Amino acid sequence: MAVRLGVAAQKQPRTLAPPPAPVSASSYEAVRRFSESLCEPLVTEDFVIQSMPDVSPTRWHLAHTTWFFETLVLSKYVPNYRPYHRDFVYLFNSYYNSIGEQFPRSNRGLLSRPTVKDIFDYRAYVDEHMRRLLARGDAGESSELASVIQIGLNHEQQHQELILTDIKHVFSCNPLYPVYRAADPAPGRSIAPLQWMSFEEGPRSIGSIGEGFSYDNEHPRHRVLVHAFKLATRLITNAEYLEFIEDGGYDRPEFWLSEGWSTVREQGWRAPLYWEKREESWWNFTLSGIRPIDPAEPVCHVSYFEADAFARWAGAALPFEWAWEVASETASIEGNFAESARFHPAPGPDADSQEGRPSGLAQMFGDVWEWTCSPYMAYPGYRPVPGPLGEYNAKFMCNQMVLRGGSCATPRSHIRRTYRNFFPPAARWQFTGIRLAQ
Amino acid sequence: MAVRLGVAAQKQPRTLAPPPAPVSASSYEAVRRFSESLCEPLVTEDFVIQSMPDVSPTRWHLAHTTWFFETLVLSKYVPNYRPYHRDFVYLFNSYYNSIGEQFPRSNRGLLSRPTVKDIFDYRAYVDEHMRRLLARGDAGESSELASVIQIGLNHEQQHQELILTDIKHVFSCNPLYPVYRAADPAPGRSIAPLQWMSFEEGPRSIGSIGEGFSYDNEHPRHRVLVHAFKLATRLITNAEYLEFIEDGGYDRPEFWLSEGWSTVREQGWRAPLYWEKREESWWNFTLSGIRPIDPAEPVCHVSYFEADAFARWAGAALPFEWAWEVASETASIEGNFAESARFHPAPGPDADSQEGRPSGLAQMFGDVWEWTCSPYMAYPGYRPVPGPLGEYNAKFMCNQMVLRGGSCATPRSHIRRTYRNFFPPAARWQFTGIRLAQ
Amino acid sequence: MAVRLGVAAQKQPRTLAPPPAPVSASSYEAVRRFSESLCEPLVTEDFVIQSMPDVSPTRWHLAHTTWFFETLVLSKYVPNYRPYHRDFVYLFNSYYNSIGEQFPRSNRGLLSRPTVKDIFDYRAYVDEHMRRLLARGDAGESSELASVIQIGLNHEQQHQELILTDIKHVFSCNPLYPVYRAADPAPGRSIAPLQWMSFEEGPRSIGSIGEGFSYDNEHPRHRVLVHAFKLATRLITNAEYLEFIEDGGYDRPEFWLSEGWSTVREQGWRAPLYWEKREESWWNFTLSGIRPIDPAEPVCHVSYFEADAFARWAGAALPFEWAWEVASETASIEGNFAESARFHPAPGPDADSQEGRPSGLAQMFGDVWEWTCSPYMAYPGYRPVPGPLGEYNAKFMCNQMVLRGGSCATPRSHIRRTYRNFFPPAARWQFTGIRLAQ
Amino acid sequence: MAVRLGVAAQKQPRTLAPPPAPVSASSYEAVRRFSESLCEPLVTEDFVIQSMPDVSPTRWHLAHTTWFFETLVLSKYVPNYRPYHRDFVYLFNSYYNSIGEQFPRSNRGLLSRPTVKDIFDYRAYVDEHMRRLLARGDAGESSELASVIQIGLNHEQQHQELILTDIKHVFSCNPLYPVYRAADPAPGRSIAPLQWMSFEEGPRSIGSIGEGFSYDNEHPRHRVLVHAFKLATRLITNAEYLEFIEDGGYDRPEFWLSEGWSTVREQGWRAPLYWEKREESWWNFTLSGIRPIDPAEPVCHVSYFEADAFARWAGAALPFEWAWEVASETASIEGNFAESARFHPAPGPDADSQEGRPSGLAQMFGDVWEWTCSPYMAYPGYRPVPGPLGEYNAKFMCNQMVLRGGSCATPRSHIRRTYRNFFPPAARWQFTGIRLAQ
Repeated sequence: MAVRLGVAAQKQPRTLAPPPAPVSASSYEAVRRFSESLCEPLVTEDFVIQSMPDVSPTRWHLAHTTWFFETLVLSKYVPNYRPYHRDFVYLFNSYYNSIGEQFPRSNRGLLSRPTVKDIFDYRAYVDEHMRRLLARGDAGESSELASVIQIGLNHEQQHQELILTDIKHVFSCNPLYPVYRAADPAPGRSIAPLQWMSFEEGPRSIGSIGEGFSYDNEHPRHRVLVHAFKLATRLITNAEYLEFIEDGGYDRPEFWLSEGWSTVREQGWRAPLYWEKREESWWNFTLSGIRPIDPAEPVCHVSYFEADAFARWAGAALPFEWAWEVASETASIEGNFAESARFHPAPGPDADSQEGRPSGLAQMFGDVWEWTCSPYMAYPGYRPVPGPLGEYNAKFMCNQMVLRGGSCATPRSHIRRTYRNFFPPAARWQFTGIRLAQ
Repeated sequence: MAVRLGVAAQKQPRTLAPPPAPVSASSYEAVRRFSESLCEPLVTEDFVIQSMPDVSPTRWHLAHTTWFFETLVLSKYVPNYRPYHRDFVYLFNSYYNSIGEQFPRSNRGLLSRPTVKDIFDYRAYVDEHMRRLLARGDAGESSELASVIQIGLNHEQQHQELILTDIKHVFSCNPLYPVYRAADPAPGRSIAPLQWMSFEEGPRSIGSIGEGFSYDNEHPRHRVLVHAFKLATRLITNAEYLEFIEDGGYDRPEFWLSEGWSTVREQGWRAPLYWEKREESWWNFTLSGIRPIDPAEPVCHVSYFEADAFARWAGAALPFEWAWEVASETASIEGNFAESARFHPAPGPDADSQEGRPSGLAQMFGDVWEWTCSPYMAYPGYRPVPGPLGEYNAKFMCNQMVLRGGSCATPRSHIRRTYRNFFPPAARWQFTGIRLAQ
Repeated sequence: MAVRLGVAAQKQPRTLAPPPAPVSASSYEAVRRFSESLCEPLVTEDFVIQSMPDVSPTRWHLAHTTWFFETLVLSKYVPNYRPYHRDFVYLFNSYYNSIGEQFPRSNRGLLSRPTVKDIFDYRAYVDEHMRRLLARGDAGESSELASVIQIGLNHEQQHQELILTDIKHVFSCNPLYPVYRAADPAPGRSIAPLQWMSFEEGPRSIGSIGEGFSYDNEHPRHRVLVHAFKLATRLITNAEYLEFIEDGGYDRPEFWLSEGWSTVREQGWRAPLYWEKREESWWNFTLSGIRPIDPAEPVCHVSYFEADAFARWAGAALPFEWAWEVASETASIEGNFAESARFHPAPGPDADSQEGRPSGLAQMFGDVWEWTCSPYMAYPGYRPVPGPLGEYNAKFMCNQMVLRGGSCATPRSHIRRTYRNFFPPAARWQFTGIRLAQ
Repeated sequence: MAVRLGVAAQKQPRTLAPPPAPVSASSYEAVRRFSESLCEPLVTEDFVIQSMPDVSPTRWHLAHTTWFFETLVLSKYVPNYRPYHRDFVYLFNSYYNSIGEQFPRSNRGLLSRPTVKDIFDYRAYVDEHMRRLLARGDAGESSELASVIQIGLNHEQQHQELILTDIKHVFSCNPLYPVYRAADPAPGRSIAPLQWMSFEEGPRSIGSIGEGFSYDNEHPRHRVLVHAFKLATRLITNAEYLEFIEDGGYDRPEFWLSEGWSTVREQGWRAPLYWEKREESWWNFTLSGIRPIDPAEPVCHVSYFEADAFARWAGAALPFEWAWEVASETASIEGNFAESARFHPAPGPDADSQEGRPSGLAQMFGDVWEWTCSPYMAYPGYRPVPGPLGEYNAKFMCNQMVLRGGSCATPRSHIRRTYRNFFPPAARWQFTGIRLAQ
C-alpha cells in the first residue's frame, strides 16, 4: 500500500538520550534487596492473595521483576543462559505481547505454586547470573544492555510501590485489619494555610533533558507555550476534604464530571477509599492499621474524579502537567518517600513555621501522587523505544490521567521532575491526592 | 392474621429418629484427624486460594468445621466457655442466618489471616474443650447434645469431601498442574458390558428408617408407588461418553434441556470439566496430575445437564431418586471411597469376571455421585429440625437435583442408601457421574 | 455403542390420547379473532416494545402464533404452499431448534419491520390458507393434522395470556402509566375467612384422562400415593400479604429459601411486582392504571420465592401439584378468566355469603395461577411427542415450578384440572398468587 | 474553608464572544422543519426503538429538541407560559442535573407513549409559542435569549445527525435490512494517491475567533506552539483499510493500544461496524441498504482504537487537534453534508483530476468525522457557561477523543474549523473515519 510504504520510508534513527552510565553491581543489589526488605513483615499466606484484578499478589511482584531480568537481559545477552523454569516466561509475563502469551492477569491470585520459597530461589538464581554479568563489565560497554538493566531496576522500583499499595488493599479486605508496620498515630497539629504561588506566561521546555535515567514517555523534550497559572503551596488536607464531604460533595452532581458522577453512584462512593464511618467519626485504614482520620494529613486514595470534583467545589482546578513540571523546578526533590518507612502521607508545613515568611511549594515530592488535569498522551514527536520495551508506556496512552511527584510508597531515587505516572480516572488504590491550581 | 395463627396452633411435636447413641471420643478424634490428614500433601500457599465462588480455601474448611463445634456445641453446652477469638463467629459462619451475619462467601479467598498455623491452633483449642466435654459423658445423657455432635461430625465429613474437590479445582487453574497424590495410571482394561436390572411396580417405603445417623431431609419415611423400572448394572465409562462427544453431543440441541443448551453455549463446554484436548487425544486433570483419559474409568465431573443429554442421546433416562433407593437395597455399601486414597473413580467390573453369570448392580456406592432426575424437594410431611440446624438442608430445596451413592472423595462411614446429596444442575466440580435407567 | 443401541431398540410406539376430534373452522376463527381483539386498545407504538428479555412485543406474539400455523401446518400439509415471506421462518421462530436457528429472543424489541400492518396482512394470508385447509375437511381425517392444529390453537391461547402480561409490563415501565382498559376500582368488601378443606390419604390417579385436548406433559396418567392434606378454601388476599410485609417479611431470612433470599437482596424486593409505596400507602399498577391496593383482592405478581416465604411465615405450606389436582375435582371450572375482560384478580367469596354454611374451594380456577411446591418434571413414563412439538414442554423440565388453575388472563377454554403451567421461581410478571396447604 | 472562599473570590466576569445576532424566525423554521423532513422515510414503528444504550429512539430526539426550547426558552422567558405536559420536563430531559432528575437514558426504548403523533403535536405547540416569541423581537434585544435560542438550534442540528446515525443502527439490527433512502451504488472509480501536505513550526492561535456561533468548549482562543507536521491530502479508503485487515490487523496486538486490543477481543471485532463477510467478499450496511464495499469510499464507522491501530500499521499517526485546525485554514468548508441527502461518505478526488497539479487538502469537511489523537479537554482558561447550559460540554471532558470536520450526516451550517466533536475511543456508530498525519 502506497500510504504505508511511503510513510515507513520516512522513519529516522532516533536518539532518545545520551548513553546511560554503566549500572553498578551495588545499585543492582540495593534495588533487589529493597524489594525483599519490603516483604519482611509478611507471612507466607499474605504473598498469595489478589484482592481485585488491579492488585497482584506479592509473590507475583517478586517473580515478575525477576522475570524481567531473566527474559530481557540474561536470555538475550548471556550466551547459553538456561532459564530457571521453562514455564516462567509465560507465567510471569505481565503484558508483553511481543514476548508471547500471558497467564491472565485476573487469575494471578489462583496460583499457590511456585511457592514463595521457590520464588525466592528463582530470585537468587537470577541474581547470581546477573552478578556474573555485571562483573563482566559489559553493561558499561554496551549502552543497550546498560539501558535495559536500568529500565529493569526502575521497573522493579515501580513494583516496590505496587507491593505496598497492593498489600494495603489485600489487608483492607480482612475484617481483622492486619498491620503491616506498627506505628502510633502522631498527635494532630496545625497546618500552614494554603497559599498560591504565581507563574508567568511564556515559552518553556518540557520533558527529559536526558541526564540520568528517564522513560521514553518523557521524550522528546519540547517547547510549549505555558499560560500563566497559580499553584497551591501545599496539598489538600483531610480536614479540607471533609468540608467537601460535609457540604454534600458526594450528593451534588454539579461538581462532577458525567462519568465521575456515574461512578459515584454505581460504586456507592461516600468518601475516599479506606475511609469508613464508625458512629459519628471517620476512620481510615492504613498500613499501620485502622485509625481515626488525622485532619492535618494530606487526603489520600482519591480518584481523579474526586480530585476534580473537589477542585470544582473549591472554585479552583487541577494543574496541567506542564504547569506542575514548570513549578517543580522551584522545589528540591525531597520528601516523605518509601525509604522513610512511614508508608503514609505526612502532614504539611507547620502553621508556626510559616509565619511572616514567603512560602515555597511544599510537599511537591513524596507523600501522594498529585492528579493533573492532563490526559496521558504522547509528547509531539514521541516514538516508543523499539522491541518489547516499546510496550512499556506507549500502549497505555488512552483513558488515563497523568500524576506527578511520587508518593510515600515511591523510592526516592525513582522520581524526578519530568516523571509521568498515569492511572485511569477511577483508580483509588494508589497513594493519590490533590494539589489545586488556578 | 387468622391464617397464620390458625396454622401455627396445629404444629405438633416431632420425633425424627430414635435417640442417637452417645458419640465416642474416639469417633470424634477419628473424624477430626482425618481432615488434617487430607491436608498433609499441601503447602501453606495452597490453603489460601478460592478459585471460584463455589470453592472455599482449605484453611476455611478447617476453620469452619471447628466453628461448628465451637458455636453449636461448646458455646451452648459448656458453661463459661470462652471462644478462641471474638471475630471467628462471624468470619467462619457459612450460611447460618439465625446465628448472625456472615463474611461474604465469595471473599473467602481474600483472607491471609488468621494464618494456617493460627487455624490449626484454633482446632487444637476446640478439640481440647471437646475432649473434656466428651469425657464428661453428657453426650450420652443428652440426646440433643449427642445429636448435634453427630451432625457436626457428619458435617465435617462433608467438608472432607469438599477439601478434596476444592483443592482439585484450585490446582486445575495452575498451568503447572500440581500433584496432590502421586500415582501411576493403571493400564486400561476391558469392562463388562452394560446390562439392565429390572424392578417391579408396587408400593415401597422411602427415607430413613431411623437406625444410625441421618439428616432431616431423609425424613419422614413414607410410602410411594414405585413404577416399574430398569437400572444399568454399572456406571457410564469415559469410552461411552466419548462416543457421545464424537457423535456431536455438544453441538446438537436436540439432546439438551433448554437451560442446559444455553449453558453449553455460554460456557463453551465441549467435554466434562478437567478434560482437555491435546492434539488429537483427550487428557484429564486428576488429583494425581494430568494424564490421558482412561476409557475404562467412569466418566466424571459432568453436570446434570450433560448427564441428562447423554441419557437422551442413549435413548435412556436418568433414574428417579426413589428408583435408585429401591434398587440400592440389592447392593452392599462398599466401593471406592476416600479411605482408599485413590481420589479418582475406578473402572467397573472386568469383562472376564462377568461371563455367564447374572450380574448385580456394580459401583452403586463410591466412585462418583450419580445424578438422578429428581429435583431436590421435601418429602411429604417434612419438617426441618428447629434452631440453626434447620438451615442445614431445608433452605436449599430449590433448583437443585438429587445425587445418590457417594464418591471416591466421600468417607465410607458418611454414606447410606437413603442419603440425599444435591447440587445445581450446572455444577461440575464434584465427582459426579452417570448411571442410566429406563 | 452397546448402551445406546440396546436402549433404542426398546422404544415402543406411543399413544398419548385418543384421536382428537376434528377442529372446526369456527373454533379456529374464534381463537384467532380473540388474539386480535386483545390488541384493540393498543396504538401502533405499543406493539413494538420489549421491556425485558422475558417479555415479547405484541407484534411478535401476533406473528409467532401465525408462524406456528404456517410452519407446522401449512408448509407441511398443504402441497405447494408458498410461505408469506422467506425470512419469517427464522424471524418468528421462538425456540424450535429442530426447525432452525432463531432470531435472538432478547432482540425481539429491536425490530420495527415487518410493521404491525404487515403482520396483520401475514395473519390474513395464513388465515385464508387455513380456512381452505379446514374446509377440505382433512383435519377431521388426519388425526395428526387435527392434533397439530389443536396444539396451534392452544398455543395461541397461551400467547393471548402473554399479550396481556407482557403489555402490562411494558406499560408499567412508563411513568405516564397508560391504561389498557379503563375501569373504576370497586369498593372494598369483606371476605370470608380462610378455612381448610381436608383430603384423605390413598392411591389416586393423576394426569390427563385423554378426553379433549391435553399437552404431552399431562401424560401418562399414573397412580400416585396421595398423602393426607388440607387445602385453603380461598386465595391469600392483599390484606394478608400486607401483614407479612409489615411483620418484616422481606427483612427476615428465616422465611426464605436460600436462593430466594439472595434474590430479595439482589433485586431489592420489598413487595410484589407492580406495588409501589406512595407516602404511607401502597398502590399497584393494573391494566386499568395505577390505584390503591384493594385489601380484598387476591395478592398477585408474587414469585415462587415470595409465595413460599409467605407460607412459611404463616406456618403453612404450598400444595404439591398432585394435591391441587385431586382437590380440584371438587370444584367446577369457572371463575374470572380473560373473557370477563377484567384482566385483574377479583376478591373471593363474601364474608356474608359464607355464614353458617360449609364452604367449598373458591377461586380454584381463574384469578391467579397458584404456585405449587412441585418442581416441573416428567411424569413416570413420560415421552415427548415426536418432531418439533416435542420441544414444546420437555426441554423446560428443569429449574421451574408448577402452577395450576389459570388466571384472569387465561382464556376459559384453555384450562383444565390436569393443566400444568410452569415458571422459574423468581418470575413475577405473570398473574401468580398463593393458596396455602398443610 | 479558606481554600474555597479564596478561590471563589477570584472569579471574574467572562465574555465568551460578541453578542450574537438576533435569531431570525426563518432560521428557526428551517432547522425545525429539517428535523421533521429527516423522519419522512420512517414508519411509526421505527420511531420507538432503542437498539443500544447509546442510541435514542427517533421519537425521543424529536421530543427532546422541543423540550430544549420549552424548558430553557419558553418557561424562562415567556411569562405565564404553560408547559404542554407536566411530565415532559422529566421525561425528555437528557442529562441536565441542574434541571432535575431524568428518565433513565437506557430505558428510552421502553416507552410507547406519548405517541409519535403526540410528539408532533408537542412540537407544533412549542413552535407556535416560539414563533410568537421570535415575532416579539426580544431575541434581538436580549443577547442572552438570542444566545440560548442559537444553542437550541445548534443542539437540534446535533440531534439531526443523531437521528440518522441512530436509525442506521436500529435498521442494522434487523435481518430484513430496511432501506432509509433508496440509492443505486455508484460504479467504483480510481482515487488520487495519498500525498502529504507540510506545515511549519511556529506559534499559532487556536479556538473560536468569536464570529458567529460557537460552543463554550472552543474558547478561549489561545496561543499554542505548533510543531511541524504533515497531513494526508485525503481520507483513508476502504481499499486501504482492507489491506490492514488482510495483513492481520485485527490479530496483531503490536498495532493496538492496550485498551483497544482488549476491546477487539472482547467485542470480537474483525472489521468496521456494519461490515459483514458474505462468503469471500465484504459488504456493508448503509442507509441505502446492504451492499458490497466500495473500495474508493472513505472507510467509516471505525473506532478511535481502529483508527489509531491503522495509523500505527501504516507507519503514520493521527493528527493532533491543533494540527487539524491549523491545516483546515487552507480548505474551504464544503463537502458531502446532510443536505446532499447521500447519508454516506463519498469517494475522494479522482485520480485523473490530480495529475500534474499540486493537490490541496480534500475531504476536510463532511463525509466522516476525523479522529484526532487529542483527548477532549478544556482549553487553558476555559470556563463553562453558567446555568444548565454549562452542562453541555464541560462535564464530558474525560475519556473521550476529539473529532473534527463533520460528516455526511452533519448539517452544513452546523460545522466550522474550530468545532470540537468528541466520542469515547470505542464508539463506532457515528460516521467516523481516518486522516493520517506525521
